Amino acid sequence: MRALFFDGAKAEVVDRPEPDLKAGWALVRVHLAGVCNTDLELCRGYMGFQGILGHELVGEVLAGPAEWLGKRVVCEINFACGACEMCTRGLGRHCPKRTVMGILNADGAMAERILVPVANLHEVAAGVSDEAAVFAEPLAAACEILEQVHVTAATRCTVLGDGKLGLLVAQVLHQAGARVLAVGKHEDKLGILKARGMETVLFRDWDRTPRDLVVEATGTAEGLATAIGATLPRGTLVLKSTVADESKLHLAPIVINEISVVGSRCGSFPPALRAIETASIDTRSLVSERVPLARAHEALSLAAKPGVRKVIIVVRES
Amino acid sequence: MRALFFDGAKAEVVDRPEPDLKAGWALVRVHLAGVCNTDLELCRGYMGFQGILGHELVGEVLAGPAEWLGKRVVCEINFACGACEMCTRGLGRHCPKRTVMGILNADGAMAERILVPVANLHEVAAGVSDEAAVFAEPLAAACEILEQVHVTAATRCTVLGDGKLGLLVAQVLHQAGARVLAVGKHEDKLGILKARGMETVLFRDWDRTPRDLVVEATGTAEGLATAIGATLPRGTLVLKSTVADESKLHLAPIVINEISVVGSRCGSFPPALRAIETASIDTRSLVSERVPLARAHEALSLAAKPGVRKVIIVVRES
Repeated sequence: MRALFFDGAKAEVVDRPEPDLKAGWALVRVHLAGVCNTDLELCRGYMGFQGILGHELVGEVLAGPAEWLGKRVVCEINFACGACEMCTRGLGRHCPKRTVMGILNADGAMAERILVPVANLHEVAAGVSDEAAVFAEPLAAACEILEQVHVTAATRCTVLGDGKLGLLVAQVLHQAGARVLAVGKHEDKLGILKARGMETVLFRDWDRTPRDLVVEATGTAEGLATAIGATLPRGTLVLKSTVADESKLHLAPIVINEISVVGSRCGSFPPALRAIETASIDTRSLVSERVPLARAHEALSLAAKPGVRKVIIVVRES
Repeated sequence: MRALFFDGAKAEVVDRPEPDLKAGWALVRVHLAGVCNTDLELCRGYMGFQGILGHELVGEVLAGPAEWLGKRVVCEINFACGACEMCTRGLGRHCPKRTVMGILNADGAMAERILVPVANLHEVAAGVSDEAAVFAEPLAAACEILEQVHVTAATRCTVLGDGKLGLLVAQVLHQAGARVLAVGKHEDKLGILKARGMETVLFRDWDRTPRDLVVEATGTAEGLATAIGATLPRGTLVLKSTVADESKLHLAPIVINEISVVGSRCGSFPPALRAIETASIDTRSLVSERVPLARAHEALSLAAKPGVRKVIIVVRES
């Protein structure tokens, strides 16, 4: 089958062996795969990954348990052991033995077909477009914040970064009732949030007034220091950016202002799927471009350009 | 009056002007003042402080409101405005206009007398020795963790550092019912905790098994990275060390393991005073040495030596 394979040096569309079905797993025919900034980081050496890229997909089950055959699905990306302490606590996303789709010792979704544990499948409701469903994974990562931090209508938040994740995070917090200020670099992207009733400001015009909750989604190494300065004493700073390199940082302000820095990664899919089913979160405006699998390597370079939103790799039109 | 004054370059016992009493403040005759690692950091340039050092004291009210005269007191160290948003939320410790005793634009307690806002005074119960009462401030800083993090009998904690603060933190968490492992460098100091039923281990023998809650109280720049590696996914890391310099740090593990890094500084005095009154926390074993005010600069160098516990400056024997 054709797949976007990263060999440790470069990402290319090549022929890869067909995945072998095994018990407890399902073979999924990929319709669409989304490009995430993590894919770009992986191609710079993050995690030392080699394999088929991609961890955002929608597709249909080709082989596996009878009750799943033919169903349209999205897939959680952490492939957990199901037996350890983390798994029994319902936190398979933190299973120490996990592999991670397209990130850690498991092939990803930028391919014609992918093998996924049945436990990781979620059916997509009829009426939801593939193009909306493919946002399940990044939207779950945005919803994860609500699982970690108690957000109310009284919460004043600043979301730093108007990249793909920042735009989802701002919407999720707004939907939870919080008062959101989104800070970004692109008038057009901030406009998506403004149209939904959020306050927005360009970085260069931002007055940096500290707020209760700050989400760092700039994807940069400098983002955390900026975010610390914009968090109220006893406030919470959610760190979403995964940066491979070592950062230089003054830690004393975290202690002096008693800030909680909460690392945040993948989320569980149900809240994200419900938001997608009800269209309570705008994903449509977030799509920049559709690129066929044959040109998937171009999708990566396109996604790396400033101002580009979600790039979707079309494997099979549904 | 005589006082240990830091002029930005060196700390010396010199004559300083008598503080002028003003409305809403009390003049306190100092009995004992404790030496804290922060005093040593201040003498290395932290906070750019100049003035009389010291923020741990017990004394008696010499002048001020009639109802306080002659009372034996300990004093909270953040001098707040009382009117801003933080103050009205009961968090005067984070008042943006605050001065801080012996740390930020306010003279400290290593002096014959000190001026303190009446709002910051707490009476010391009869029967409590001066030598126990002088631990109110550092013990409040240890108790602060319980105000920030929900600790239960099911919480498995690791306390890193057997310095003055680490020994108090370990006891506070143990007293809250948590299962504490204290990691330190000194058999004798760890012995104080072992005698109270805690597990202890030397750094060189520690297996670094991750736990739910890790308190970083090593006072070193490297402490945080060690602590991150010793915190379970979705666990909490309380950062107690204030380090003036920039640290180099890999942030990705905080995001990947969704760790909450909680900065923690000063605490409110009531829980600390109750622990001191009931002697539920051992402070007596924590005292290394008593040094008269006239030799207070020696107290600082003594406190900087490895293995030394709390050094107490005796201003006036009660």
